[in-house]
Amino acid sequence: MTAKNAFYAQSGGVTAVINASACGVIETARQHPDRIANVYAGRNGIIGALTEDLIDTSKESAEAIAALRHTPSGGFGSCRYKLKSLEQNRREYERLIEVFKAHDIGYFFYNGGGDSADTCHKVSQLSETLGFPIQAIHVPKTVDNDLPITDNCPGFGSVAKYIAVSTLEASFDVRSMAKTSTKIFVLEVMGRHAGWIAAAGGLVADHDIPVVVLFPEVEFDQDKFLAAVKAKVEKYDFCSVVVSEGCHWPDGRFLAEQGTRDAFGHAQLGGAAPVVANMIKDALGYKFHWAVADYLQRAARHLASKTDVEQAYAMGKAAVEFALAGDNAIMPTIVRTANDPYRWEVGKAPLSEVANVEKMMPMEFISEDGLGITDACREYLYPLIQGEDYPPYDKGMPRYVTLRNEPVAKKSGRDFEV
Amino acid sequence: MTAKNAFYAQSGGVTAVINASACGVIETARQHPDRIANVYAGRNGIIGALTEDLIDTSKESAEAIAALRHTPSGGFGSCRYKLKSLEQNRREYERLIEVFKAHDIGYFFYNGGGDSADTCHKVSQLSETLGFPIQAIHVPKTVDNDLPITDNCPGFGSVAKYIAVSTLEASFDVRSMAKTSTKIFVLEVMGRHAGWIAAAGGLVADHDIPVVVLFPEVEFDQDKFLAAVKAKVEKYDFCSVVVSEGCHWPDGRFLAEQGTRDAFGHAQLGGAAPVVANMIKDALGYKFHWAVADYLQRAARHLASKTDVEQAYAMGKAAVEFALAGDNAIMPTIVRTANDPYRWEVGKAPLSEVANVEKMMPMEFISEDGLGITDACREYLYPLIQGEDYPPYDKGMPRYVTLRNEPVAKKSGRDFEV
Repeated sequence: MTAKNAFYAQSGGVTAVINASACGVIETARQHPDRIANVYAGRNGIIGALTEDLIDTSKESAEAIAALRHTPSGGFGSCRYKLKSLEQNRREYERLIEVFKAHDIGYFFYNGGGDSADTCHKVSQLSETLGFPIQAIHVPKTVDNDLPITDNCPGFGSVAKYIAVSTLEASFDVRSMAKTSTKIFVLEVMGRHAGWIAAAGGLVADHDIPVVVLFPEVEFDQDKFLAAVKAKVEKYDFCSVVVSEGCHWPDGRFLAEQGTRDAFGHAQLGGAAPVVANMIKDALGYKFHWAVADYLQRAARHLASKTDVEQAYAMGKAAVEFALAGDNAIMPTIVRTANDPYRWEVGKAPLSEVANVEKMMPMEFISEDGLGITDACREYLYPLIQGEDYPPYDKGMPRYVTLRNEPVAKKSGRDFEV
Repeated sequence: MTAKNAFYAQSGGVTAVINASACGVIETARQHPDRIANVYAGRNGIIGALTEDLIDTSKESAEAIAALRHTPSGGFGSCRYKLKSLEQNRREYERLIEVFKAHDIGYFFYNGGGDSADTCHKVSQLSETLGFPIQAIHVPKTVDNDLPITDNCPGFGSVAKYIAVSTLEASFDVRSMAKTSTKIFVLEVMGRHAGWIAAAGGLVADHDIPVVVLFPEVEFDQDKFLAAVKAKVEKYDFCSVVVSEGCHWPDGRFLAEQGTRDAFGHAQLGGAAPVVANMIKDALGYKFHWAVADYLQRAARHLASKTDVEQAYAMGKAAVEFALAGDNAIMPTIVRTANDPYRWEVGKAPLSEVANVEKMMPMEFISEDGLGITDACREYLYPLIQGEDYPPYDKGMPRYVTLRNEPVAKKSGRDFEV
């Protein structure tokens, strides 16, 4: 069997641990030089394949590749670009084959979420549809934790840990100040459609912190919400609120859209957090502070979950091993086998069952009043935030790696516009 | 010499390390039972003294007190309450003496910023003005880093580290996404009057990150700012912006006040970050993300600077030692004796020179264009963010302590309204 090259690319929003998956792919591939000659990475995701902008990862030292494991973001660049169907854009698929042929690519590893699983699935069919032999394996990644079949997604555990810890720390702060100053702290977190990340903020209730969680899965009920906040302030003298960016009114409008206008009349300057904070102030008069974590939450490698880092690496490693074992059109998955102590193993799922399927948070994870999490949710979340995995530091700053990212010489003989 | 009791209280906005100072005070006092019988903490700061709501710290185990060193926030509660002058409110000073006499208080340790130094200074004069013998020592604390004489303030180094690391991580993220998505990341940080915290964000330039810093010390110049952002995006394809909450227009209006109105017509829903982000979008068309760190930055004990923790503890310890040596009306200070390797020692400053004096950032720390930091600033900042000092974790969450905070029996014989 002759060695082929592998293509690897990162897709969609990046995370604190997607590079750990890249590390798993590349380190594992390097252990099989007889089967995988080289790993070419797409610069900025699939766009790198279409434009033949490939990165020669063999130019990176073993140390640099190892450092990917503790470096957040997408080391090769990512993109938001979804391939249309073969019927709608045959040109793109033919171009992929052209580039893959030119560079002798036999393996396609695509690291992303639901949209990327769809792209990966389409590529996996090239063999059948366009007669080009390739094995396509999807490497799961998404802070939103919304991929089906796998128990959880690499990237989520670290965001969950960051949100849980940050909510705890800020809640301790507001508790200190409540007597004469701030009584309300509102934290806005990611999650347009699913409340997994917001749920992590709910864990602080286990530390005797009064907290209200606003999920995208639950229609916002202003009266009920304000009553819950009031009750908690009356009991504890303060209250924390974790609001998902996707929290919305019964008519579907996001809270963040609630008529906010800047001086030029543009909508949506603020986020959901200031809207909620001002709502509390107007109705109940409590002094507030609010924060919007945004990219800080998904980039916070300094506080990554050790479980998450290990799983991200394992998914990259398993993708290569599955490919070498002959698999195509699959995604490695995380299979939970025990909760306490937590145990998991690597499984696999067919991409036909993964692509374009969004896993919502089960309703039994949301408390009956819709404003908190249940014990079942706690049991699910705790293992995923377990353990710390600190990056090395120099001069007080994390030693994150920026790769050389040297281009592979073009061979396809033509340019391509995306 | 008979033993007296000590009073300790936390004042103003809390920090990631103010409890480390409390730990330094209490552990050091416990080593001198012949001189300091007990440390009574004010519940919610000086209000605890006025209302005779004292906490008996002797009821806390050695382990609990030790855990204060790694616990953010104010373990005894803080307050925003400034004593008026003796002429304006003699009643409050007489009440303090009444409570201190009732509880045999001979030492007053007040842990706070500029306003608190003023309160502490007034208390230190009680001996002279009202004939009550007491030694008052101020323990420096402020994330704003604006106390005079001391080279830096405990609390600042940890915020600086958090902002520098968070800006770096989010910048790596936006760099990954810039090809097809977000090109601008804006982070809003604390600092109404002084740009020390914003300056820490400027450190990412040393990691090849294009960054623009907006200081409260520099009047906002929209054209110049937008030109700087444009130049960086044209060169790097992305740009990070760190904006101080105190950033303002030439006429003094804060950026955050720029006409933002909610549906009810209330001003200032958003912060400076969304204003700046939208300004860039409107003028240059770049897609953006923005974050407001708010309490997360000052509560982030999980990423505290080791230097900061050690200095916070040392200030508490020195306060007690100075008191035992007979000092009154002083504040321990941090004296920098060398930059590389960094060395510092404990000094002291008279409160008459500390109270109500605000130390601004030197103009030679701000680059000539007003949008970045200088090498002198880097040299100043790096030692302060040096080293990590992680809290212990249980089940993925930091093991922060919540004290028992048992009250001391009242003895003054009357109530007092604040």
